[in-house]
Amino acid sequence: MKRVSFLLIAVGAVAAVVAFSATASRQNSQEVAPIFVTQIPAGYRDWRLISVAREEGDLKDIRAILGNDIAIKAYREATISFPDGAIIARLAWSHDASEQNNKTFGRSQSFVAGVPKNGIQFMIKDSKKYASTGGWGYGHFDDGKTADDAVLKKCHPCHQAIKDRDFVFTRYSP
Amino acid sequence: MKRVSFLLIAVGAVAAVVAFSATASRQNSQEVAPIFVTQIPAGYRDWRLISVAREEGDLKDIRAILGNDIAIKAYREATISFPDGAIIARLAWSHDASEQNNKTFGRSQSFVAGVPKNGIQFMIKDSKKYASTGGWGYGHFDDGKTADDAVLKKCHPCHQAIKDRDFVFTRYSP
Repeated sequence: MKRVSFLLIAVGAVAAVVAFSATASRQNSQEVAPIFVTQIPAGYRDWRLISVAREEGDLKDIRAILGNDIAIKAYREATISFPDGAIIARLAWSHDASEQNNKTFGRSQSFVAGVPKNGIQFMIKDSKKYASTGGWGYGHFDDGKTADDAVLKKCHPCHQAIKDRDFVFTRYSP
Repeated sequence: MKRVSFLLIAVGAVAAVVAFSATASRQNSQEVAPIFVTQIPAGYRDWRLISVAREEGDLKDIRAILGNDIAIKAYREATISFPDGAIIARLAWSHDASEQNNKTFGRSQSFVAGVPKNGIQFMIKDSKKYASTGGWGYGHFDDGKTADDAVLKKCHPCHQAIKDRDFVFTRYSP
């Protein structure tokens, strides 16, 4: 009987410690250093198109925004808050005048995607893992290598401007 | 016996007529009026991305070029001549300055896809059906309605400028 009582107390103590840690973790989640995406999600180049865009200024690129199945479903159903597992990828290429197209059209009007440029970026939704950055993990890869934390720290502050759209800039293009 | 002979002759005659028709059809394929794509291929918005582009001039759009599985496979394997069944889709949207993005970046540099514009276009490879236009059937749809033949007749003459690339302008963007 004594041994059983001791066992119950021990189990209770462990449970209490686990419960306390979980609570503490939740409470501190807004204060801890942000966690970033450090691995390129597999198969992203096969994902479906969300939209296209272009940046002038220092970036000077033409870009495509792709989404995995969870992200595309959320977009199409106009879900305001993306569910966990949603991933958005941003690819970009140099924005090049196309001499061949222009020659065919008889005037300068065509621009095409040239070489990959400005890295590949990802936003991964995991409301627990990335709680300190609105539930989104941010990643940036140049030639397959993850960017420094100093670069990645700049992602979320900018995205906070569109908190009401769950921190996502790109809208779905039908 | 007589009945069997008659049957054989009848079958032979039918076969001869069929064979003649097929030969005549093949011989005339270069002379007949071009055949166009008059139905929107199902599920094209779920296809994978080939590349992105932009047109100034009268078109003023930003565009995405998608491919079905056969087209994507051919692109990735650098197959010079696309196999039958390959379909390439061209979607386009207005090329709009993004006030929200510019406000966030603190300068005017962002352009995004706005409303759908300049219709949706398709190229379908079927070397027999579309023999008179290099094996490609061309389609153009505005608000789901096919364009007139007068419009579609203009497709192939332009694409002939890139006959050495199987009449396809868009290159694959990694």
